[in-house]
Amino acid sequence: MPAERMRWWGWGEERRAPALSPGALSVIRETLAIAGQPRPPVALERVRLDPSALAPKAAAALREILGADGLRDDHADRVAHAAGRGYPDLVRLRAGTPESAPDAVAYPSTREQLAATLDACARHSLAVVPFGAGTSVVGGVAPLRGAHAAVIALDMGRLARVIDIDRESAIVTVQAGLRARELERALAREGLTLGHFPQSFEYVTLGGCAATRSAGQASTGYGRFEQLVVGVSLSAPAGRIELAAHPASAAGPDLRQLIVGSEGTLGAIDELSLRVRTAPAVTVYEGAFFQSFEQGARALREMAQSRCAPDVARLSDENETSLSLKLAGSEGMRARVGRAYVGARGYGQGCLAILGLEGAQRDVSARRARARGIVRAHGGLPVGGSPGRAWLRSRFHAPYLRDELITHGVFVETLETATRWGNLHGLHRAVAEAIEGALRACGTPGVVGCHISHLYETGASLYFTFLAPASRGEEIAQWQAVKQAASAAIAAGGGTITHHHAVGRDHAQWLEQEIGAVGVDALRALKAQLDPAGIMNPGKLLA
Amino acid sequence: MPAERMRWWGWGEERRAPALSPGALSVIRETLAIAGQPRPPVALERVRLDPSALAPKAAAALREILGADGLRDDHADRVAHAAGRGYPDLVRLRAGTPESAPDAVAYPSTREQLAATLDACARHSLAVVPFGAGTSVVGGVAPLRGAHAAVIALDMGRLARVIDIDRESAIVTVQAGLRARELERALAREGLTLGHFPQSFEYVTLGGCAATRSAGQASTGYGRFEQLVVGVSLSAPAGRIELAAHPASAAGPDLRQLIVGSEGTLGAIDELSLRVRTAPAVTVYEGAFFQSFEQGARALREMAQSRCAPDVARLSDENETSLSLKLAGSEGMRARVGRAYVGARGYGQGCLAILGLEGAQRDVSARRARARGIVRAHGGLPVGGSPGRAWLRSRFHAPYLRDELITHGVFVETLETATRWGNLHGLHRAVAEAIEGALRACGTPGVVGCHISHLYETGASLYFTFLAPASRGEEIAQWQAVKQAASAAIAAGGGTITHHHAVGRDHAQWLEQEIGAVGVDALRALKAQLDPAGIMNPGKLLA
Repeated sequence: MPAERMRWWGWGEERRAPALSPGALSVIRETLAIAGQPRPPVALERVRLDPSALAPKAAAALREILGADGLRDDHADRVAHAAGRGYPDLVRLRAGTPESAPDAVAYPSTREQLAATLDACARHSLAVVPFGAGTSVVGGVAPLRGAHAAVIALDMGRLARVIDIDRESAIVTVQAGLRARELERALAREGLTLGHFPQSFEYVTLGGCAATRSAGQASTGYGRFEQLVVGVSLSAPAGRIELAAHPASAAGPDLRQLIVGSEGTLGAIDELSLRVRTAPAVTVYEGAFFQSFEQGARALREMAQSRCAPDVARLSDENETSLSLKLAGSEGMRARVGRAYVGARGYGQGCLAILGLEGAQRDVSARRARARGIVRAHGGLPVGGSPGRAWLRSRFHAPYLRDELITHGVFVETLETATRWGNLHGLHRAVAEAIEGALRACGTPGVVGCHISHLYETGASLYFTFLAPASRGEEIAQWQAVKQAASAAIAAGGGTITHHHAVGRDHAQWLEQEIGAVGVDALRALKAQLDPAGIMNPGKLLA
Repeated sequence: MPAERMRWWGWGEERRAPALSPGALSVIRETLAIAGQPRPPVALERVRLDPSALAPKAAAALREILGADGLRDDHADRVAHAAGRGYPDLVRLRAGTPESAPDAVAYPSTREQLAATLDACARHSLAVVPFGAGTSVVGGVAPLRGAHAAVIALDMGRLARVIDIDRESAIVTVQAGLRARELERALAREGLTLGHFPQSFEYVTLGGCAATRSAGQASTGYGRFEQLVVGVSLSAPAGRIELAAHPASAAGPDLRQLIVGSEGTLGAIDELSLRVRTAPAVTVYEGAFFQSFEQGARALREMAQSRCAPDVARLSDENETSLSLKLAGSEGMRARVGRAYVGARGYGQGCLAILGLEGAQRDVSARRARARGIVRAHGGLPVGGSPGRAWLRSRFHAPYLRDELITHGVFVETLETATRWGNLHGLHRAVAEAIEGALRACGTPGVVGCHISHLYETGASLYFTFLAPASRGEEIAQWQAVKQAASAAIAAGGGTITHHHAVGRDHAQWLEQEIGAVGVDALRALKAQLDPAGIMNPGKLLA
């Protein structure tokens, strides 16, 4: 069993120190004109679940496979697998009213148990929701049963072994239930790193990263998760696909890239061979100010296109920069960066970039020199290491902060897209305006910020964060209105509906706009072949 | 119409100067103990074809769509589309006895014509073989009709426009029938390059590169073709899939990587958006000697894993080095490299590497310094620019040379694989031994050489070339025996059945070993969805 399960109503461990300083909270309450009292989550025992619908015969069949300890239907286990960690998930969990819960949780310990579990579920018409750490923010683990009799959460947490580290080939082979953090610990002992640090790093499983085409904060340097996957195995109801760890191949369509991103709808990813690198000898994280988002984006584009991009490159727009500086408060970045200094230099309403370089000393020095040259050439102002160190310290904090903000009546959400450089600013404006407009239409005007966080030679991601007063009692409708407006603006504006959060349930209605009706039909045919009973993760990916 | 069609019986233009010097020819005849007279190809009019089986009604339907000029069934057109350019193709063409020929050749000029052509072919039960330049060496364009009434070659040569160059985003959008060389010419006028230089560069179409997951000689630096594809459109019998040019996406399985590598079996790739780069200001190609293949491979591995790999990195094994030096003759590399010099330094039986760097001056200088440091650290001996320049001059000559060798009674063939670094030398030995053994068993012992030509952090490609006396009159059986032995050794030895030649017909029986029965069934389901009548390129990819 994984030792650290997340607290059932929110992110991370139960006893985590608050991430939100009193000063920052006042700034937010003032900015958003929020007056109400904090609302903590209900107690676990007050969470209302329907009784388990798992038929005794089906339960017996699963216990036969998994052992008594391998199938659970106690309240805590069902609640822990009742939802992901999107805003609507959190709103519902905290109120004690999740939409639904799995009728039981299966914990296979071997590949054989996994295959037999899928087989039994198909025979007993049980929907199966593969479950890594439950960090999906797009409804990817919602326990939907589709047309089936009941729904089982397939917890991969007992398939969490490092199988092999091939140093010569720079390939690690793992079971898919292993957590990213645990793998980094194992690799660190060998002087290696995977370099995959999504915001969910402390909890997310590697299978989850593969299933969702995850991108980590350092993916500009280390590559998106699908670029790290050299081999992968999928246990599907129709059988197992094992794809060996080849560095490259021309042997037909790349099934690796079909399994990666399949979001549990074709089967459960159970093993992965991943490319690793030597752990960096040096890490340098620095800040730079630009007078505008456009100016900063030009600099980042030049870095990407001349292939000297930092491993981490983030550029906040004016709104996000201003909000971060306000929130950092007197003890925070504001003081260290020297707001007066950047203000006096004409960057006062500007945009903060974080540039992080990791690697061997020589490589980092060379890329740092080039990056600084490009920053200056585009009128940027390097401001030293403080903003970088501050970002590093808090790189995994945002989901904790979100829990506290929700307690204080804030509607806080993020969404992301990516597009070619030539379309970046048009899309940025269109999506920001759509979110702002939808919030105003709800009677809850808010603050919308955005940053570029992943660079490619051909384009970049745009990651939007917005804050507004929650419509108490109407939180889900408010969220839906804004999500719908933002998604429509992304689709109309030529962006991809998701850069790294995946499709899940929330983006499923937009997939056809992205890949067309013929593309959706192709995926359906594939699913029908690999999952003929349609038990795998119903309602996700394919609407 | 593309102006330069390849000569019908071999590679390239009709009036190309001989690539094989008299000295090199004697070396080969002596090495392989070949005594017979040269055998030139028969005359075009002596090529025997069955009469076209295209029914008048079907022909009329296609002419209705394509115009009188858009459907051809004259002898020259049918012969020109009768085969690819694998060794068995060449043997049969030169003898005037191709296995078969398309019953007609369709030349759509618009997307609408293309869609209507596929539709008409489905209605009239005509197999369709998408045809770029016919450079496949694995039977990828063999005009097989499967269970259909007749077979049409779908020549993409009139869909060859550059649609858009988006400099800001570094993306060029083209019609898929455009040739790689033509695109490079268009890009050069803009100071840009695609950087994709397969040995077939002078003829190959971009659609062909996409359909086969091509890797160019400089793909270590510029990326494999599938890494260049940011957007792609496929005209399938069931409809069109258009995937926009997003730099990255988490919107489900990546259909781009399903279409790329589909080898004409799902539909015809008709448009591509490709990542381009600034044309290199500087190119430096140099040679280095290593005392052994293992030593050289260690150096290349370190370059790849410390991410300072040259854009082109090739390391010949002892056999290939020795043969190249012999063939280069007195006017060739032997003299320039100074064989006595390398011999005296202990590299006489060693391995030659070609390291090519392209880019901005600063970048090339930095990577060159690092590469040289790594060469020396592994006991290698840099030998200056001559071998590099010689390689550059002859980089596209091998297929011409092959034609001349076949004329002189030589069985000459290449095949390739890739594997993780930790498995490289075992696979190298196993495949070389399998080829040598099969040649001996045919009573035609030969010379087998190999080079590493594409580096990845996790592994590399192995490209085998072998020469033996052709079994006159039994060439195809001889080829089959060796191909079977080599493929079996690759599959048993943990390599991929193809690194960049694709599956085509020749490797189709090995695909199941690579992706498993469940994987093959998944591809079949996908094909059944996109090509319900099963007209697209029968007998390729899926056995």
